[in-house]
Amino acid sequence: MASMDDDTPETQPDPRSPTAAMLVIGDELLSGRTRDANAYHLAQWLDARGVALREVRMVPDEKDAIIAGVRALKSQADMLFTSGGIGPTHDDITAEAVAEALGVDISVREDALGILEEWYAAKGEEVTDARRRMARVPEGAALIDNSVSGAPGFVVEDVFVLAGVPAIFSAMLDAADDRIARGPQTSVYTVIGEGGESTVADGLIALEEAFSGLKIGSYPGKTGQGGPLCIVCRSFDEKVARQAALAVEGLFRAQGVEPEIVEGYGPMRD
Amino acid sequence: MASMDDDTPETQPDPRSPTAAMLVIGDELLSGRTRDANAYHLAQWLDARGVALREVRMVPDEKDAIIAGVRALKSQADMLFTSGGIGPTHDDITAEAVAEALGVDISVREDALGILEEWYAAKGEEVTDARRRMARVPEGAALIDNSVSGAPGFVVEDVFVLAGVPAIFSAMLDAADDRIARGPQTSVYTVIGEGGESTVADGLIALEEAFSGLKIGSYPGKTGQGGPLCIVCRSFDEKVARQAALAVEGLFRAQGVEPEIVEGYGPMRD
Repeated sequence: MASMDDDTPETQPDPRSPTAAMLVIGDELLSGRTRDANAYHLAQWLDARGVALREVRMVPDEKDAIIAGVRALKSQADMLFTSGGIGPTHDDITAEAVAEALGVDISVREDALGILEEWYAAKGEEVTDARRRMARVPEGAALIDNSVSGAPGFVVEDVFVLAGVPAIFSAMLDAADDRIARGPQTSVYTVIGEGGESTVADGLIALEEAFSGLKIGSYPGKTGQGGPLCIVCRSFDEKVARQAALAVEGLFRAQGVEPEIVEGYGPMRD
Repeated sequence: MASMDDDTPETQPDPRSPTAAMLVIGDELLSGRTRDANAYHLAQWLDARGVALREVRMVPDEKDAIIAGVRALKSQADMLFTSGGIGPTHDDITAEAVAEALGVDISVREDALGILEEWYAAKGEEVTDARRRMARVPEGAALIDNSVSGAPGFVVEDVFVLAGVPAIFSAMLDAADDRIARGPQTSVYTVIGEGGESTVADGLIALEEAFSGLKIGSYPGKTGQGGPLCIVCRSFDEKVARQAALAVEGLFRAQGVEPEIVEGYGPMRD
């Protein structure tokens, strides 16, 4: 795992940022039954920690697809997060697939089994064969606490294997917080004005070139018809982001539009 | 493009289903600024047409990442849908990247430019240099109508290049409907009962093995704490899906739970 002190000259967005990728696992996402919530949550959670999420992949509950995803994404990022497929049913094959992708053994671990026994005993229930599956953990993994439903997640070789149910995914992520590398905070200013994207488009290219270490994103309203246009200026250097926002303000004014500058991403689009 | 009549013995989920993949493009999704809506919409839209969505990838506004995504996904599925990066601003690089991924030229096309001229003329506006970028289309592409904001999408070699703004993405998808291969409908029944997943887990494996062409998914409530448990039975054979649902009903009853069977996916999780 990269740390804040590492010299990591090869990562892409900024040499100082630890990178992450995500593998979202589940037939229900690809059939349209369920709208994924975990990628959105993870993106915000990592952004707040200065970690650059580089790619998200969504694959079905198929061993080959999961193995291919784990291998490809692990090679591209410092940390990989998986979501889904670690419950007690037959379609929960993530733990096995991750173990196979990494070439390590997997078996029922006593510490994981102990957690399950204690959790279900408190409810007056047994650890059935199906539940026992949730104690299968790859060799070398550290368990991740699950305060919502007992059965733990785990992390092995910087692959964080978390549940798919959003409340559990989120709780496990928080439980793993002290294992996550931190990077420098990105400063973000958003300039919000009326108009279509082409209102300020011509000026943005020159602007991004003029400021070193600046990233500008242009986001029209949800309908694509009017609504506020958001120009997002991001930089590791707070001054650069702020000065770029002032320059974008100037682009709007040159078109007769009086924009607003806010810190952060401005109105989110959900 | 595969059609309903094709013999396509190599596709994975079912030999008769055309397959699709999706590439979602945008820094704003990976930073957590925006929650993607298009993958969820496309998944439902394709499911209704009997097309199996096999994988979704989310990548940043970077040419290399887009090119790698297009090449990898195109080789895995009959159709590829991209979302995002075809607007007028400097961060809109999808059309160029797709052309490069496919090894075809790209230039401003007269028909696309004509559409833009007519659209903006109706609003008393000009086609600026920035807007002119939206008329850049890869060689061999067919245009896809954009009833929301004028600038067209396009399809080239079964790669459908669509806008990222949800209202425009959706409109373009509908405009491309007659170019989409159809597959057989999946029959879906969902058995809804109270209890945790392990209530019926032990019986599901045997069930999936007993019915040929049956897929069963097990989905706990959103919180992971009680709430309705949904067991989804899917098959191309309506009888198989229905009989499996009745068998799942029996698994619930054996646990003293009286479940409900509904056609379709039951309560969606958003």
